[in-house]
Amino acid sequence: MVISKALTLQTRGNGDTYDLTRSVAQVVLESGVSDGVAALFVIGSTAALTTIEFEPGAVADLQTAFEKIAPRHGEYEHHLRWGDDNGNSHVRAALLGPSLTVPFVEGQLVLGTWQQIILVDFDTRARERRVAVQIVGE
Amino acid sequence: MVISKALTLQTRGNGDTYDLTRSVAQVVLESGVSDGVAALFVIGSTAALTTIEFEPGAVADLQTAFEKIAPRHGEYEHHLRWGDDNGNSHVRAALLGPSLTVPFVEGQLVLGTWQQIILVDFDTRARERRVAVQIVGE
Amino acid sequence: MVISKALTLQTRGNGDTYDLTRSVAQVVLESGVSDGVAALFVIGSTAALTTIEFEPGAVADLQTAFEKIAPRHGEYEHHLRWGDDNGNSHVRAALLGPSLTVPFVEGQLVLGTWQQIILVDFDTRARERRVAVQIVGE
Repeated sequence: MVISKALTLQTRGNGDTYDLTRSVAQVVLESGVSDGVAALFVIGSTAALTTIEFEPGAVADLQTAFEKIAPRHGEYEHHLRWGDDNGNSHVRAALLGPSLTVPFVEGQLVLGTWQQIILVDFDTRARERRVAVQIVGE
Repeated sequence: MVISKALTLQTRGNGDTYDLTRSVAQVVLESGVSDGVAALFVIGSTAALTTIEFEPGAVADLQTAFEKIAPRHGEYEHHLRWGDDNGNSHVRAALLGPSLTVPFVEGQLVLGTWQQIILVDFDTRARERRVAVQIVGE
Repeated sequence: MVISKALTLQTRGNGDTYDLTRSVAQVVLESGVSDGVAALFVIGSTAALTTIEFEPGAVADLQTAFEKIAPRHGEYEHHLRWGDDNGNSHVRAALLGPSLTVPFVEGQLVLGTWQQIILVDFDTRARERRVAVQIVGE
């Protein structure tokens, strides 16, 4: 059994981070599927998905690490070729990755108590984001 | 067809790395499912899953890279807010990611000969860890 | 319904990056499955999968970030133990990850317009690579 949904959200970019846990849990419940996986996929190449303890400290610390790996104001080939300013966004999003697959059992996602599903929007401007949620199960 | 299992293991933390390949292969075999995916998900926000050639050299090299990205004794907002000392663990785990989905065909995981499924426990203390294994297939 | 396919490609290594989008889309179409997920998994521990805007600038920028995290000519325990020279390849591949799960709806992958599925071969030599594509859906 497959149920296809999408979440839409307005983001501000620049590392803006959103807790999707409640929305995903609701999609699972409304699907009527008892056991399976929620395959999440963020559409676009400047945002990514993972899990974290969703509190402002840990969220800021993740940004600090990405600032080391791909500085916001570094030099990027992507800028030279496209006149863009979001080279760092592409690198960060590719590294963190667009897909996250979360199992659920008896309608409940198997997350830890302090583990939330997050979308990080690395783009350098506000965006409307869509996250596909594919429920596959029985 | 969906079969839900979980692996439990005692870890020592601080980058302690475990080869889960044999345990996951056994879950696949015991499920009786021939073709599908094993959707693995580590519960908690300070551990992560990936694959590597599981030999002490490569495992140590991965830790060295993480020490650059998020030093064990660096400064973290997470510490200031929570009096915790595992800021680096949260950053590393979010970056590596909690989910790994491995296809299997005729009951066999499609891994390379030198490619093992690993759990890395980044926390700063010993933990009991659970990894959900959701088998979806036919 | 589960359909198992594999893509094979010749790579040159050293960060060589391939756009798999068209091949994966074709596997989905030929499977005859309407809605589900394409679970991609690269076999071997020195290559990885993600998505990116597939243009030479962004691809080069991703390599630059990996050169910081795990330099091509750095020192690696893996070298000392195995007389190998691809320690950086193992670290980079483990970090980026071997698995990517992309939902599809009515036979179409849910990718953004500027978002392509890529394989990055981090090995230090040419390889023949196989990517398992497991279609699970209905």
